[in-house]
Order: sequence, then structure tokens, then C-alpha cells
Amino acid sequence: MREFELLEHIYRANPDLGGRVLVPPGDDMALLQLDGTRLLAAVDQLVGGRHFDPDRLPPALIGRKAVNRSLSDIAAMAGRPVATLVAATLPRRLEEAAALAIFDACRAAAADVDAPLVGGDIAVHAGDAPLVLSVTVLAEPATGRAVTRAGAAVGDGLYVTGALGGSLGADGLGHHVEFRPRIAEAIELARALGARLHAMIDLSDGLGRDAGHLADAAGARIEIDAGSLPRRGGADVRAALADGEDYELCFAAAGEVPDAVLGVPVTRIGAVTGPATRRGDVLVRDGADTYHAGDLGWQHET
Amino acid sequence: MREFELLEHIYRANPDLGGRVLVPPGDDMALLQLDGTRLLAAVDQLVGGRHFDPDRLPPALIGRKAVNRSLSDIAAMAGRPVATLVAATLPRRLEEAAALAIFDACRAAAADVDAPLVGGDIAVHAGDAPLVLSVTVLAEPATGRAVTRAGAAVGDGLYVTGALGGSLGADGLGHHVEFRPRIAEAIELARALGARLHAMIDLSDGLGRDAGHLADAAGARIEIDAGSLPRRGGADVRAALADGEDYELCFAAAGEVPDAVLGVPVTRIGAVTGPATRRGDVLVRDGADTYHAGDLGWQHET
Repeated sequence: MREFELLEHIYRANPDLGGRVLVPPGDDMALLQLDGTRLLAAVDQLVGGRHFDPDRLPPALIGRKAVNRSLSDIAAMAGRPVATLVAATLPRRLEEAAALAIFDACRAAAADVDAPLVGGDIAVHAGDAPLVLSVTVLAEPATGRAVTRAGAAVGDGLYVTGALGGSLGADGLGHHVEFRPRIAEAIELARALGARLHAMIDLSDGLGRDAGHLADAAGARIEIDAGSLPRRGGADVRAALADGEDYELCFAAAGEVPDAVLGVPVTRIGAVTGPATRRGDVLVRDGADTYHAGDLGWQHET
Repeated sequence: MREFELLEHIYRANPDLGGRVLVPPGDDMALLQLDGTRLLAAVDQLVGGRHFDPDRLPPALIGRKAVNRSLSDIAAMAGRPVATLVAATLPRRLEEAAALAIFDACRAAAADVDAPLVGGDIAVHAGDAPLVLSVTVLAEPATGRAVTRAGAAVGDGLYVTGALGGSLGADGLGHHVEFRPRIAEAIELARALGARLHAMIDLSDGLGRDAGHLADAAGARIEIDAGSLPRRGGADVRAALADGEDYELCFAAAGEVPDAVLGVPVTRIGAVTGPATRRGDVLVRDGADTYHAGDLGWQHET
């Protein structure tokens, strides 16, 4: 049973969305039409033993990561944060000090980007079972429109912020818990590029797979130049394509794009080159080698 | 470690809410000021082994209950539903058909009240661990204002919709999975009573404890007449006060109140009689007996 396929089933079978759902499930966030404004909403989970190793990650970093992962979805849509809600199911053996450290970290990460923690629910497992943190984030389109995964056009350049690969350090720590969601950078890009910013996603599953989502949403082929990939210290090309948890922005844009945003490097790594010939049509040119990368990365599989 | 105390810690220590949070955490939902409108938001969880018995409850009823519990919070605030988001962590052994039945039921319950399922996340436990369903609901104040737990005034009558007690049947089924959230009834009450509808809550933890929340929020004493309690078939007074999971509305209002709303009985069960003399100041007059009921009901305790 694949998580991704379950989600596809749920959403495909949902004809009851109504006229207020402007961007349906399947993007980084849903976009809703309210009376007088538009709202972005998404939920994501961090599950002990599945998404992190509870024996290696200090409680404060667990809370921070859980919230920042969801906030990264706001960045992907160029949203301005509104609020955060956290539901937690705690392991029976978790000490109170650890629980408090997790929640303090959740609250701090949310407050850092003006997405105050306004709701929560706490339960304790009946038996011995892992921590589940479910984080809902709400936002408003920062520049009047939400930037979705769809819209990349042939001729667009493909860009990423920051560096890729090697997110999980040998000690279990590293970028995957220390990252800051690129919310301010995304808003600045949306302002600077305007309608030329065609499509955007945050890199969670790995560049290969996430670029595949941009390709699929546009019905396009994306070509990536391996030599251009900005890599985190020690990461090779495959790591940059497949490791995931970069929480950087990946976007398709027409015309000139600045080489940095708010001090964070922006690198052109490829282009949208034509109509799609397969699902996840991401072709990597790596010296004399050419290979498909749309399947590289983290598959949500049981 | 008590769930309630953990929540209190989190919210008490949160001075960073900012000016957009009109009703802070601690009520049934938070109320947020957006550009041009107001939004209600809340999250609640249903945890296998804790909130339901996975061996007795069919998958479809699990999904329905999870969503309807959260939707009941919308009723408590007299909100009009906007959208639902569901995060699920699935037991490793759960069969795909059961997973699909859960999600189909979630989607149907949400669609029933025009709160379409617009976001979701699915994970599968790494080991053997129970189902966790986390349901976020969004709404708008239906009559321009949100009806909170605070505001009951001395002289108000105390009322409930429907009948109380015996929510959990001997077969594990019954009202606690079959209820419909009182969303339409709450909106109709808010329209009919206007500013005379002073405070409202939905009955999840049991009338004694939930009336205690109304009392605490107003700094008032509530007196309940045991003989007036509308009881579900077979339930005695104690069950009506303490069983919980009624998901009916309990509200304090001034002046005349209709004896039914949209066909659902509305019963006057007591009054707000004076300033509080203790926490959860709910006094029950039961024939010659008098006792406190603010502690009766479901305590969120590990």
C-alpha cells in the first residue's frame, strides 16, 4: 500500500469540492476562496520511527522540524503565514520535560515566521507507540496569487535556492532539522518576478522527484544539467538529486532571474525543454551520461 | 502527565499570538482576523485504543466519527464550515480496503456539511502502532460573530439540544459514532437569539465538565436541575452529567428561548445563578440532594 496512491484515490474521488476551492488537493497547499480573501491550508505529519529516529533527535529539534516542514509548504506557494495548529499523540513513556520541549519548539518555530500556534490537541497513546505530530498551517497568498506546481512553460529556466543533498548528517542531525523554511525568499521572488514566476515547489522528496511533479503538472519535460547543481558539502550529484529534505525552493521562470534572493543563492540548474514523453519526465545531462531522474528520491511507500 | 495541563502550559506561555488572533487557544476554536474576513480554526484527534476500540468499530464509522467530532467544534462557535484537512498515520497491518473505507467516510462526513476535504497527509507506522486521525476544520462565523465559551451572565438560562448520556452503546456503537454535528442548529440559534446567545460549547467531555468550562469562562456559578435533564433512553442522571460524547450544544442565553430548533428539542436545564465560588462551579440540585458536577465527566488524563 503506497501512501501516494491512497492520497490519489481520495482526491480523485472527490467531486464535492465546491466552487470555493480554487487550488484543489495535490499541490503543496489548497487555496480557498473566503468572503473577502483567499486562504492557503495544508497539513503534514512527522511520525517517530518513520520520519525521524526518536533515539537520535533531541525533543526540541523534533518539534522544530515538524513545524518547519509544514511551513515550507507555505514557502512553496509564496504565501504569507497566518497561523499554525499542532496535534500530538505522545508515546506513553515520553517524559513530561521532553513533551514540553517539543511543544516549546513548535511554538517558537511558528512564532518565528508570524504563524502563531493558535490551536492544539494532545493525546497519549494507550500502549507503547511512537510520537505523531500533525501540523496544519494557514497562509494568505502574499502577492495576491498563489504560485502552484502547475504552469511551467517550454523555454522557462529551472532554478533552486541554496544547496542540495546530504541533508541527513552522519550523526542524525544536520540540515534536515536545522533548515529555515524559505518563506521570505519565496515572497521576495514572487514580488520580483511577478507573472514570470510560473511554477514552484519545495524540495522535500528530492530534486528528481519534485522536479517530476513540476513536469507532470505542466505536461512538460525538464532537463537538468548535473554540473550546475549546487551541492551541500560532500554531496555528490546523485545525493543532490535524490536525498530529499532540502526544503529549498525549486521554480520555473521566464526571463531574467536574480542570482540571489535575500542573500540566498539562486542557481539555474536546467530548463523546460518540451512536451512530456513520460510521467516524471526529468532528464539529467551528466557529462557524457544522460538519465531519467523523475523516479529518484523518496517514494512514499510502506 | 495530563493532556489538559500540557495544553495549558503551551497556551499560557504563548505571548506571541499577535493582533490577528481574536479568540486565543482554549475555546472550541481559535478566531483569526484575515484581510477582509474572519476565520475559525481547530484541530482534534482520534487515536486507536484511546478514543475508540479498533476491534469493535468498523472503518467507516472511525472516519465518520473523527471528522464529525471536529465539525462539532464548528457548531460550538456557531460557525459555517469552510474546509476540512485530515492527517492519518495508519497501522502497518491495516488492510487497504479498510484504509479506503476510513478516508471515504472522512470525505463524506466533511462533504455533508459543505466542509470539503481539501488537504491530507498519510503515513504508515514503521512498526505495529495504532491509527491516529488528526482532523483540522476551518469555518467562518455564520452570523458575523463567533459564539465563545465566555459571556454567560447571572440570570441567563442554561440550555441543551437533544438528549444526554448513554452515548456509548453496549455493542461499542451508538450515538458516539452516529451523531450529526449540530452545525445547522447552532447557526439557527445564533440567528434567532442574536446577542442574547451569550456563550456556547459542544458537549464532548460530559455536561458536568463542559458546563464547568462555561462557568469558568464567565467566572460564574451554574446550577442544574437534575429532573430537567433530557436523557437518552436508559441513561440515568449521572450518565447524562458524566458520560460525555453527546456532541449536543450547551448554551447560556437571556430571555425567551424556543423549545426546539430545526426540529431538535431545546431544553432549559438550569441557570447562571451568581459569581463563581470554585473552579468548575456547577451545582446540581437532584431532589433533596445537592452536589458539584464540574468534575464529572471525561478527564483528559494519561
